[in-house]
Order: sequence, then C-alpha cells, then structure tokens
Amino acid sequence: MAVEISKKMANLHGSMIRELFKLGSDPSVISFGGGNPSVETFPTKEIEEIAAQVLTDNPVSVLQYGLTEGYTPLRETLKKYLAEKEGFDFEKNDLFIVSGGQQGADLTTKILVNEGDVVLTEEPAFVGCLNTFRSYGAKLIGIPMQMDGIDTEALENTLKKLTDAGEKVRFLYTIPSFQNPTGITSTEEKRREVYRICQKYDIMILEDNPYGELRFAGQNVPTIKSMDTDGRVLYCGSFSKTMAPAFRIGFLVFDKSLTGPISVAKQCTDVHSNVLFQYICNEYMTKYDWNAHLENSRNVYRHKAGLMIDKMKECFHPEVSYGNPEGGLFVMAFLPEGMDAYPFVRESINRGVLCVPGSAFLADTESKSNGFRLNYSSPSDEQIEKGIKILGDLTYEWIEKKA
Amino acid sequence: MAVEISKKMANLHGSMIRELFKLGSDPSVISFGGGNPSVETFPTKEIEEIAAQVLTDNPVSVLQYGLTEGYTPLRETLKKYLAEKEGFDFEKNDLFIVSGGQQGADLTTKILVNEGDVVLTEEPAFVGCLNTFRSYGAKLIGIPMQMDGIDTEALENTLKKLTDAGEKVRFLYTIPSFQNPTGITSTEEKRREVYRICQKYDIMILEDNPYGELRFAGQNVPTIKSMDTDGRVLYCGSFSKTMAPAFRIGFLVFDKSLTGPISVAKQCTDVHSNVLFQYICNEYMTKYDWNAHLENSRNVYRHKAGLMIDKMKECFHPEVSYGNPEGGLFVMAFLPEGMDAYPFVRESINRGVLCVPGSAFLADTESKSNGFRLNYSSPSDEQIEKGIKILGDLTYEWIEKKA
Repeated sequence: MAVEISKKMANLHGSMIRELFKLGSDPSVISFGGGNPSVETFPTKEIEEIAAQVLTDNPVSVLQYGLTEGYTPLRETLKKYLAEKEGFDFEKNDLFIVSGGQQGADLTTKILVNEGDVVLTEEPAFVGCLNTFRSYGAKLIGIPMQMDGIDTEALENTLKKLTDAGEKVRFLYTIPSFQNPTGITSTEEKRREVYRICQKYDIMILEDNPYGELRFAGQNVPTIKSMDTDGRVLYCGSFSKTMAPAFRIGFLVFDKSLTGPISVAKQCTDVHSNVLFQYICNEYMTKYDWNAHLENSRNVYRHKAGLMIDKMKECFHPEVSYGNPEGGLFVMAFLPEGMDAYPFVRESINRGVLCVPGSAFLADTESKSNGFRLNYSSPSDEQIEKGIKILGDLTYEWIEKKA
Repeated sequence: MAVEISKKMANLHGSMIRELFKLGSDPSVISFGGGNPSVETFPTKEIEEIAAQVLTDNPVSVLQYGLTEGYTPLRETLKKYLAEKEGFDFEKNDLFIVSGGQQGADLTTKILVNEGDVVLTEEPAFVGCLNTFRSYGAKLIGIPMQMDGIDTEALENTLKKLTDAGEKVRFLYTIPSFQNPTGITSTEEKRREVYRICQKYDIMILEDNPYGELRFAGQNVPTIKSMDTDGRVLYCGSFSKTMAPAFRIGFLVFDKSLTGPISVAKQCTDVHSNVLFQYICNEYMTKYDWNAHLENSRNVYRHKAGLMIDKMKECFHPEVSYGNPEGGLFVMAFLPEGMDAYPFVRESINRGVLCVPGSAFLADTESKSNGFRLNYSSPSDEQIEKGIKILGDLTYEWIEKKA
C-alpha cells in the first residue's frame, strides 16, 4: 500500500548536511561538511568520573523517570549562571532542559506556529531549524545576512510588506553569535535594532545561541534576550558544543507565561530529557573548573579557525570572499557574485573534500547560492592544510574556466 | 505582553498524571498514581559496568553526534530479536531508535496526521499519547475497551459512520498487551479482527507495546504488527520498562516506504537519540543474560500484581470490579456504573493514597469515568497493603453513602 504522508512533511527532504555526514564518514574524504565539535574538547575523563560515581552511589536517581522541566539542580545552576553572565531575569523567565538545541526550536514552533504562519529567518540559516519550522507548515521568508548581522532594513521592509498583506508573522529565527552557516556575529547595534523592529511589528524572536561560549576573538556582545523587556524572546542554549553532542542536552529560556504550553509540548514529545547527562552537566559546571574547560575549547577553535583562514588566504582565488569568525565552528566562503556553489561543491567531493553548498541553508529551497560552508572544528590540522589547498586549486580552475 | 499560543496547543493541558507525579513525590503519600517501573528491576550494576567500560576505552564513540536512525549495532540487534521473537519481516520493515516510546507516537503523528484528521483510540487510553495526537490538531474518537480488548463492533460501526460522513481517519492507536490504563490484554481473535477492520477501511495502526516483555501470567499473543501484510502497522517498543525510563530509548518499526519521512521528522525534532544509552542497551542485550533479566522483572511484577489483586479482593467493596492483569504495570478498578471516580480519587488523596481517575484517559476530556487506575510496580509491598486497605475502606463508605 502507498501511505499518504501529512501535507507538512510530504515535501520535506532530509538535511543535505546529515546526508553529507554519512558521506563524510568515509575516512578517505576530508570533511569540512559536518558541524561536529572537536573531540579534543570533550571532558571525557571527568564525564567518566561523574558517571561512574553516580551510577555506583545513587543509580536510581538518574535512571527513574524525571521531571518534564528538567533536573532541578541543573536548572538552578543554569539560571544562576545565565543571570550573572547574560543578565537574564528569572523573576520573569523560566528555564527548561530540552533534548538538544534542536528540541528548543521544535517546542517553540509547536507552541507558537499555526499552519500558514510566516517565520522569518536569516538567509542563509541553520537548515536543521528551517526544517523544523517547515514541519509545522510555516512559510519561511529569508532576510539576507550582512557581514555585521542580519540586514535590518530588509527585515523592517519585509515586515511592513507582510503586515500590509495581512500575513501573520510569528517569529524571527536568529543565531546572533558565530552564526551557522556564515560564522558572522551580529553587532550590538544590530541586535538592538532587531529587537526594536520585532517589538514594533509585535513578533517573537527565537534566539539560538549554541556557540555563544566559544568566542575565541573580539569582545563579548550582549544577547538579544538580555534586551528583552516584554517577554518576546525565547533563548536556546546547548551543551552539544560545551560538553558533548551525544548528551542531547540543551536549555530553553522563555517568559513565564509560556511555562504551561512548553511543559505540555515537552510531555507530548519525549516526556523529559535523559537524566544522567543532566546530572553530569550540573556536576561538571559546579564541581569542576567550567571556565578553564571553556577556555581550553576556545584555544582549540582559535587555533583551528586561524589555521583555516590563513590557509584560505594563501590558497583561495582572490575573488573568493569570506569573513573572519570570532567564535563557533564555521566560516562561509563566497564564489564571485552570480556563481552557483553547488556544482563547485560536487566537484570538490570528487577531489576528496567535503563542504556544504550555501543553497542548503536557504528559506527557498529552489534558490541558488554562491556560498559554501566550511567547518574547521572537526578536521585535523593536516586535513585543514591539505583540504584547503585542494579547494584553493579548484577555486582557481573554477573561476578562470568561467572567466 | 500576552503571547498568542498556537491553536493546536492553546487548549491542551498538562497530563493529570504528570501533575500527580509531583504530588506523589511527597514521601508521606502512598502513590499508585505514577507509571514508574520498579527500581528493583533496573540492572544498575551492569549499566554502571558498561558505561564505565565504554567511557574509559572509547568515550568519543558515545559522545560525538550519532546517526538519526540510531546506533547501528543496536538497530541490528533489535531487528534480529524482533524477527525471531515476533516474526517481523525486516525485508519490508525498517527500525529507528527513538527517544522513548513517546517519541514514536510523536513522529508517527507528525508524518501521518493533518489538522482535523481523526485518530481513533482505545477508551480509556494512555493520556500521554492522546495529548501527542491532540498537539497535531487531530480529532480523537474513543472506542470502548472490553475485558478482552477493544470493542471491535464499535470500531467497525464508528469507522463506517466516519467514512460515510466524509471524515479522514488516519490511524487507530492501540496498546494490545497489558494496556495502560486498564491492564487489559487483547485476545488474538480481537487483534486479527482489528487488523481486518483497519484494512477494510484503509487506516493505519499505531501499535504501542511498552509492556510487552513484562508478561507474568497467561500465554503470549502475537502482535498486530506480526499480522501486517500491507505495511499499515507502525510498532513502537521501549527500553523504559526493561532497562530504565531515564535512558529515553525506544524503537519504532515501520514499512520501509516511511523511512524518508520518519528520518526527516526525527532530524527536525531532536537530531538523534542519546548514544551512550543506545550503546548500553546493545551491550546488555548481546553480552549479558537478557532473558534472565526479563524473567527477574516479571517475577517482581507477578508478585506485586498478585499482592495488589489479593488485597483488592479482601478490602474492596464487592460492587467494585476489575480484571486480573497478565503483565505490565497497571490495573483499573471500576466503581459501580454511573459513579464518577474523580471525587473518589480526590478524597483518597486526602487520605494519603494517590491513584488516577479514569477521566484522565478519555478522548473527550469533558466525559466522566467510573474507573480509577492503580499502579502496582512502584509502591512497596507495605504500601500496597496499607494503601489498598485505605482505598477499600473508602469504597465501602463511598458506595454506601451513595446508596
């Protein structure tokens, strides 16, 4: 029998990145395609220590059903940490533990979006979340990224047009720090402007900050959530890049009026997140040197990003442009205006190097992009040097062939 | 600001059980309210052993991002196990690891249900999944349970009426073995009849089997999935009751034509399930004595169920009726026809005993029920004896007061 798939899901295809992830597991391919944090940054010894201790001394505490909202001590630790570090107000806000940042986006969309509502996204944007929004029947409209963050003029014009056309816009999705896929960090001015515009048009904001702790250059910029005076920002963080991705532990901060709906949404979805890893996160944050650990991760990424950018400067055709990431895991390179990066990426795979074409990150899946995303966190130094050289040679061939 | 909640979620309230779960954590209350497996059944020593071994020898293998479909060795182990034990055909079917049985229901609903579609459920049925279906805007219609399974005549009549009225019915949700909340096991005849009817009206079946391994009396009955000749059954299993609930590991078996949509749905939701616990499940199933472990759990539940039923026979008013569960964690007792169990349960909480009113498990949340669900897996023997005595005294007071 042919099973009919729901309208929302019928036209949704797998993330190009997750598919490439499989290709990238071929050890002969140099992969700049994934989004994996460096295994060097995992505090493996301490994870093993904490797990062994609790599984020996009090196993039932981490094996029985837990609370939907999360493990209470971890929630308290995170509230204290975020109040001090980001100035969040937990008189007004609540914090739930979620099963990775992806679930933060899923629950947010579930409670806010009716089918046919518009979700605004940065363009390009993290495809995993674009698919989450699509899976609820949202119409996605992309707002172009500039080198200092989202194009706020385009944001305001688009909102004006959509409002005039009677469209219901629910929220803006943004990664203001070390954005995936571009590596761009939005300036404080732009963040304030984004907040002002969303306030003016009365839309919500989903601020996704999975890389926030991984700043290895430049000055800290306040989160949009810290500017939130009227409870319109849902803020999502993750332990995927600060502890380990397979924990599947993240957190969502939101106005207390949303506690009921988020709670029901979480119950409907996976009841609660796994307890052992919540316990490990809390022990590690409170009994070990969390800041030294983060500093170590930053050192790893500072080195790797620096190496990749230096090598790109050396090997890439001068007409290929790119920024200089101050944190996170990614940089996006752009072929000359008008060129489609997709066939370029296909050819680079033939030559043994994997990266992701920018078109994977667009709201409109039919559009083309001259960008391609490079991940510097998981490849080794040798792979970065060798892989960028191969890509660099290809940029020369490619651009000169087209010229 | 007042945030507008999506239509699907705006009228959805927290599971009464999850709320009671909080009340039940007061140590002075005897709780028959939860659905927790007995901590005696957790293989804690072995979990600790396996976790310590992998986190020492090969930590990265269980800490880095994993595959959406699940940890390959566990998927292979489960396929082999289910092919042998249940006769599933993995030429035609696929198996994904999910984040607990709840996510199996969530992904199924996401890929199958459009807003306004009908989902048929047993009445009463597991409220966690009812809320999942509601969260996608499904219209729920309950089909009454009888002591040998769902009322198949009512099922066929309802399907006929709905079809004649032009309603789109997507699937039937059923727990054929040791149902939550009633404890009822459907006979093989009824299962075949359910399949025949669903085939006739061309609707899918979500067969939820979280308690299947916990049969402590009677003869094994084939799963509906084992009767599935045309790929209309999605079958959901879980390690929550055979390993530990906080693992958040379950599995979903479905026709291979659904692999694409299920894969995208899983990516959109939480990317993948936590890898360490997938690893532990696989090691435990393959290198330890899985059958002896299950037999031990069955012994625990056989004893506890027997104790509770014996005590109910001794203490409950003779007009209170109930079945004799052959497995699982629950039994439902029914006050005389026409009585509402809700005020009875409220009064029992005042007296220090928690159970769940049957109305929590109805498709129509406004309906009343004369049933109340009792869980025998988590209370101690002393609590079962003391708590059933208190409830029994209350049944006499209650029924004689109303007489």
